[in-house]
Amino acid sequence: MQGTKNEGSIRVAVIGASGYTGAELLRILWEHPFFEVKIVTAMRYKGELVGNLYPSLGKYYPTEYSPYELDLVEEEADVVFLGVPHGEGMKYLPELASAGKKVVDLSADFRFADEQVYEGIYGKQHTATEYLGKIPYGLAELNRERIKKSSLVANPGCYATAALIGLFPAFESGIAGGAVMVDAKSGISGAGRELTLNTHFPQAADNFSAYAVARHRHQPEIECELGLLLGIPNPKVVMVPHLSPMNRGILCTTYVPLKEYPLTRGEIAELYEKAYGKENFIVLLGEGRYPETKSVQGTNDCHLAVEVSEDGEMLIVITAIDNLVKGAAGQAVQNMNLFCGLPEQTGLERPGLFR
Amino acid sequence: MQGTKNEGSIRVAVIGASGYTGAELLRILWEHPFFEVKIVTAMRYKGELVGNLYPSLGKYYPTEYSPYELDLVEEEADVVFLGVPHGEGMKYLPELASAGKKVVDLSADFRFADEQVYEGIYGKQHTATEYLGKIPYGLAELNRERIKKSSLVANPGCYATAALIGLFPAFESGIAGGAVMVDAKSGISGAGRELTLNTHFPQAADNFSAYAVARHRHQPEIECELGLLLGIPNPKVVMVPHLSPMNRGILCTTYVPLKEYPLTRGEIAELYEKAYGKENFIVLLGEGRYPETKSVQGTNDCHLAVEVSEDGEMLIVITAIDNLVKGAAGQAVQNMNLFCGLPEQTGLERPGLFR
Amino acid sequence: MQGTKNEGSIRVAVIGASGYTGAELLRILWEHPFFEVKIVTAMRYKGELVGNLYPSLGKYYPTEYSPYELDLVEEEADVVFLGVPHGEGMKYLPELASAGKKVVDLSADFRFADEQVYEGIYGKQHTATEYLGKIPYGLAELNRERIKKSSLVANPGCYATAALIGLFPAFESGIAGGAVMVDAKSGISGAGRELTLNTHFPQAADNFSAYAVARHRHQPEIECELGLLLGIPNPKVVMVPHLSPMNRGILCTTYVPLKEYPLTRGEIAELYEKAYGKENFIVLLGEGRYPETKSVQGTNDCHLAVEVSEDGEMLIVITAIDNLVKGAAGQAVQNMNLFCGLPEQTGLERPGLFR
Amino acid sequence: MQGTKNEGSIRVAVIGASGYTGAELLRILWEHPFFEVKIVTAMRYKGELVGNLYPSLGKYYPTEYSPYELDLVEEEADVVFLGVPHGEGMKYLPELASAGKKVVDLSADFRFADEQVYEGIYGKQHTATEYLGKIPYGLAELNRERIKKSSLVANPGCYATAALIGLFPAFESGIAGGAVMVDAKSGISGAGRELTLNTHFPQAADNFSAYAVARHRHQPEIECELGLLLGIPNPKVVMVPHLSPMNRGILCTTYVPLKEYPLTRGEIAELYEKAYGKENFIVLLGEGRYPETKSVQGTNDCHLAVEVSEDGEMLIVITAIDNLVKGAAGQAVQNMNLFCGLPEQTGLERPGLFR
Repeated sequence: MQGTKNEGSIRVAVIGASGYTGAELLRILWEHPFFEVKIVTAMRYKGELVGNLYPSLGKYYPTEYSPYELDLVEEEADVVFLGVPHGEGMKYLPELASAGKKVVDLSADFRFADEQVYEGIYGKQHTATEYLGKIPYGLAELNRERIKKSSLVANPGCYATAALIGLFPAFESGIAGGAVMVDAKSGISGAGRELTLNTHFPQAADNFSAYAVARHRHQPEIECELGLLLGIPNPKVVMVPHLSPMNRGILCTTYVPLKEYPLTRGEIAELYEKAYGKENFIVLLGEGRYPETKSVQGTNDCHLAVEVSEDGEMLIVITAIDNLVKGAAGQAVQNMNLFCGLPEQTGLERPGLFR
Repeated sequence: MQGTKNEGSIRVAVIGASGYTGAELLRILWEHPFFEVKIVTAMRYKGELVGNLYPSLGKYYPTEYSPYELDLVEEEADVVFLGVPHGEGMKYLPELASAGKKVVDLSADFRFADEQVYEGIYGKQHTATEYLGKIPYGLAELNRERIKKSSLVANPGCYATAALIGLFPAFESGIAGGAVMVDAKSGISGAGRELTLNTHFPQAADNFSAYAVARHRHQPEIECELGLLLGIPNPKVVMVPHLSPMNRGILCTTYVPLKEYPLTRGEIAELYEKAYGKENFIVLLGEGRYPETKSVQGTNDCHLAVEVSEDGEMLIVITAIDNLVKGAAGQAVQNMNLFCGLPEQTGLERPGLFR
Repeated sequence: MQGTKNEGSIRVAVIGASGYTGAELLRILWEHPFFEVKIVTAMRYKGELVGNLYPSLGKYYPTEYSPYELDLVEEEADVVFLGVPHGEGMKYLPELASAGKKVVDLSADFRFADEQVYEGIYGKQHTATEYLGKIPYGLAELNRERIKKSSLVANPGCYATAALIGLFPAFESGIAGGAVMVDAKSGISGAGRELTLNTHFPQAADNFSAYAVARHRHQPEIECELGLLLGIPNPKVVMVPHLSPMNRGILCTTYVPLKEYPLTRGEIAELYEKAYGKENFIVLLGEGRYPETKSVQGTNDCHLAVEVSEDGEMLIVITAIDNLVKGAAGQAVQNMNLFCGLPEQTGLERPGLFR
Repeated sequence: MQGTKNEGSIRVAVIGASGYTGAELLRILWEHPFFEVKIVTAMRYKGELVGNLYPSLGKYYPTEYSPYELDLVEEEADVVFLGVPHGEGMKYLPELASAGKKVVDLSADFRFADEQVYEGIYGKQHTATEYLGKIPYGLAELNRERIKKSSLVANPGCYATAALIGLFPAFESGIAGGAVMVDAKSGISGAGRELTLNTHFPQAADNFSAYAVARHRHQPEIECELGLLLGIPNPKVVMVPHLSPMNRGILCTTYVPLKEYPLTRGEIAELYEKAYGKENFIVLLGEGRYPETKSVQGTNDCHLAVEVSEDGEMLIVITAIDNLVKGAAGQAVQNMNLFCGLPEQTGLERPGLFR
C-alpha cells in the first residue's frame, strides 16, 4: 500500500481503521521503517476511500476500507492491530492468536484479569475468558519484560497510561500512602469519532466540564494495575475526568499523600530519575517547569513533573501525553516493536507539532 | 455617560477601567438600574476612547479614559470600584474611604488581615496597615452580614471564590477532615490583558498546562478565609491551577477527605442544600449532572455539584464560575448592592451566553 | 414564566425553542421589558426541562418544553416567534395569522416571492403560496416601513443579513457595477444543534474550510432582495461561505466593482454615513479600523467598514454580526418591536461579551 | 547535533531559529535523511536551551542557541537557512553567498527585483541591491528550473504561496481576465512569536477579523510574480487578509473573472490537472470537495479546488496550506533539496496531524 519499504518488512493489518485511533495508527505506521500496512478494514465504511474520511491520509493510503476477512489477514499480514470498540477485541483476538499472529488489542477487552470485573465495568459478557490474565498489560515502561515475551498485548486506556506513569515510582518506592486523587483533563478527540452532543463544537468549544466523576472506567483499570504490577493491596484511586476544549492531549494532575513526610521535591525527583531516567519516551522536567499538552502533541512522549506541597506532605505528579499516540496508537506500535524484536522507539521518534 | 437612569441613581467611578476586570465592570454597570457610571479612569490610556480598546463598549461609553483625580471622584461619584493591580488598592482606598466613599477593592491588598502574610505573598510593603483586618472579605454567600454593615470590601480572588464556595458547607458542617486538594482550571482571560508568552494565542490555544503548582497566591487566601470565616485552625489546602484554552471560566474540582465515613451523595447534597438552597447565585446540580464553565459564561452564577467516591470516604465538589463576573466584576457589583441597601442581585440577573 | 413584568406586557409564544435560535430567543426575551414568554414548544423534547438542554436558561425558565397546540397559543399568546426548520414555517404561519397573531417566521419559507424559486432552492413544495410576496422581508434597516405596517414577517437568513447590510448603500447610491463577491465566514453555531461530522469538535476545531461554494441558499436570497428592495435588475452575487472555528459570528467581506471610478474611501464612507448614520444597530468604523466578530458577540449590532483598492476601482465592505442575534433571534425581536409599536431597540441594547 | 545521519550528509545552519519559522525548520530538518543541523543561532536567546523555548524540540536538539558567527558557519555548514526578520536577510546573504554557501532566505528581502518597490513596501533601504533580480523566487511549482540552477533563493511569503498556486494555471492558460480578489484567512501563528494585542489569546480566540485590507505586503508580491513568472502586464490583485482563531493554516479563496465565458467546472479542472497533475505537493480535490486547513496541517501539501459561479463567468479557486510548512519552512527545505540535487520531496513526505 505504501510501496515496499525495507526488504523483509513486516506486514501489518489494521482492523477497525476508521476511528481516530485507527487513523492515527495509519499515520504512524506510514513512517515506520519496517512495518508495512497491507490491510485496512472498517465494516461501516467498506468500499469508501480512506482519503474521504481522512483527507490528510488520502495521498499515502489511496485505497478503500475493506471488510475484515480472517483468511485474508492470515495470508497477507504478519501482525495485527485491533482498533475496534470495546467488546470486539475478544471477537477477533482468539482467532488471530490461533493463526499465529502477533496482536495488539487497543480495546479494553483484555485489560482485566477477572471476567467479572470486566463485565461489571463494560456491561458485556466476556467470550474469551481463556485469555484473561494471560495477556500482558501493554505499558512498556512498567511492564516491558512481560510484553517482550508475549505476542499478544492489551493496550492501556489513555487516562490509565497518563496516571500510571505518574504514580508508578511513588508506589514502587513505597512513599505513597493512602488514597490517590487523579484529576484528568482530556482533549475532545478522546471521545472518538462518534457524534454526541458533548462533542458538538458549539457545546464543547470554549467550555470546560467534568464528567463520570469518580465513576470512569479507567479508575478501576488504574487500581487494578497498581495491584497487578506492583502488588499494592487494595490501592484506592479517585479519578475525575474532564473535557478540555482542544483536540488532543491528556494532562493528569495526581495528588499522592506521602506515607512518611516531609519529603523535598529533590528527594522525590531523584526517585523518578531512578525509575525513568533511561526511558526513551519519558521526559522529566526540571524544577519549576510543568507539563503542557502541546509539547507532546503528535508524539509518543510523556512529559512529567513532580512537586510537593509546602508542608512536604503531599506529592503532586503531573503528566502530559497525546491521548491518540502514547495513549493509544503510538503505544500500540511501541508494543509491536517489542514483539518484533525491534528497538522500542522504532518509527516513533520525531519532534511534535508544537504550534 | 449612559444617560440618566432612574432618578436618584447612584454615581459610580471605575478606577482602573482598561483591564479585563474594569471592562467587565463597565459592561455590567451599564445594565444596572441604579448605578450610573460617571468616571472611567486608566492612567496608561488617558485620552483614548474606551471603544478603541473595547469595541463592544464603544456605543455605550462614547468617552475617553481619564486620569484619576481625587477631587473629581469626591465631587462626582458616590461609590468607587478599584479595578487596579495588586499593590495599588492600598494607595487609593484610604483617601477614598476618608472622603466617605463606599469602595469595592478588586485588588488583593485588603484580603489578608496580617501585613506580613500579605507582604510574603505579594512581595510588596503594605502602606495602609490600619485597614487590615477591618475590611470584610467580599464573598457575600459566606460573609454577607459583615459586608452589609461595611462600606469597604476586599473583593475575593477568582480561584478563591470558586474554591471557597465549594468548600464552605463541608467545613461548616464539620464533615471535612484533613488536607484539601483544589484542582483549578481557568480560562486565559484570568491572566489579564498584559501580553505574555503563556497567553500568546499560538502557545495557549489547543494547549492545557499546569502552573504555580501548590504555590499560587490564592492558596493561602483560601486557607486564610477557612480560618477567618469558619474558625478552622490551620486548614490545609493544596491547590494546582491550570490554564485551559478558553476565554472565560473557572472550574474547580476539590477533593475533601471526609472525617467520618462513609457518607452518601444524598447526605452531602442535603448539607449543601441547607447551606445554599436559598442563595440566588448558587445553582445546585442534581445527581449525575456536573458543572461546565459555558453554562455560567457572562453570569454571576456558580454552578455546583457534589459527588462521593465509591467507598464513601472522599467528597468531590465541583464548582464553575465566570472568572470575570462572579470571580471579579459581578461579585464586586453584588457587594456594592449590599452596601447601598439594594437587593443583592440587582442588575445581575440575566441568562448567560451559552453558545 | 418569568414572573409578571410590566403591566400590560405582551404575551409571547416561542414555537420551536430547542434549537440554538430558539434558545437565543429565550435569552433575549427574558430581558425584554414588555415581552413575556408564556409558551415554549419543542416537539422532540416535550416534557424535558429547558434547563436540561440549556443549563444557562434553567434558572430563568424553570419549565418544560410543551408540544405545539394552536388552541393554547390562541388563548395565551399575543405574538409568536417561529423558530422552526425550513418547511415548517408554512405549516404554522397561516393558522396563526388567521387567529390574528403577529408572527415572525425565522424559517426561510416566506423569504421568496416566487414559489418556484423557493422550491428550487429548498426542495420542498410550498403549501402556503397565498402568502408569498405579501410578507415583508424582515431586514428593518432596509425595509422598515413595510415591516411596520405588517404583522407578519420573514426573518432574513444570517449570511443574507450581513451581506445585504454591506451591499445596500453601494447599490442604492448607484456606485456598484457588475457581479459582487461575498466571501462569508461563519461560526459553527450557524450550522445549528444537529450533530454532523462537520460540526464535531475534533473536525471543526483548529480548522477552516469552505463549503457550498457559489451554491449556498443565501446567495439567491441576497440577489432576490437586491432586486425586490432596490429594483436592481438581475443582480449577480457570487457567495462562498466558510466555517471558522468559533462559536458565534459572521464576517462578510464583500467585493463590489465600482461603476465609475476611481472613488476614495472618504467618498464612499460618506454614502454609508448617509445611509446608516442614524441606524441604531449599525456601527460604522472609522478609517483603518475593521470589524471583528467578537465585538458584536451577543449583540444585535452590525459593525461595518468600507475600504477601496489602491486603484480606487474596487469597493470592499466588511460587516460583522452575531449570527444568532442580528442574524436570527435579535433581528426577530427587532421586527416584533416594530409590529408592536415599540421603539425598535427595546430589549436589545446592551454591551456584548467581549472576552 | 542529531547524531550522524547517512554518511556524507549535508551540514546545515539555521540562522534565526527562535521564531516559529525557525522552530519549524528544526522540526522538519530533524526528519530529513541527508540534512544534518550543525548550527542553530538566535541573537536574543543565545545561551538558552532550544527546549526551553520549544519543549517539543528539547529531546531532539539538546543544545543552546548560539550567536551568529560567519567563521563558524563557513567552517561547519554547507547550506544555510535564513529564518530572520525582513531587513536582515540582506545582511547575511551576501557574505554567505560569497563564502560559497547555498542559501534559502525566508525573509522578504530578495522577493522583489526592484529596490524601490521593496523599499516602498518594507520601509527599509536595501543594502544588497546587486542581488536584486538575480535570485529566483522560490515557488518550485511555478519556477522550478530557475531554482534548480541557482544556489540562492527568495522563499515566498505565506499568503503569496497560497494565492499564486491558485492563480497560476488560470493566468498561464489565459482564461483569467480583470482584477483578481484574494480573500485570505490565516491561523494566528502567521503573525509570529512576537507578542501583540491581536495575538493575545483573549482577543484572538473565538474571534474572526480582517486586517490590512487591500494593503497587505503580500498583495504586491503576488502581482509582481504574476508579472515576472508569467509576463502578465499590470496584473491587478485585491487581497484582504483575515485572522482565524486557529494555530496554523491559510485558506485562500480567490475570485477570478473569466475572460471568455461561460466555462464549466470540468473545463477548468482540466487546465489545473494539466498544470499540477504531476506535482507532488499539490492535491487537486474532485468535484464537490473543498479544502480545509486541517487536512494539510504539518505538511508541505497544498489542497486545491476549483469551482465556477452558476453563470459560468467567475472562477473560484480555493487553496489550503500550512503557513509554517508550505508557506515557510517546508517550502524552504523543498528549495534546498533542489539546490542539492535531491528529489524535491526528500524529508517532506508524511501524513499530517489531522485531529
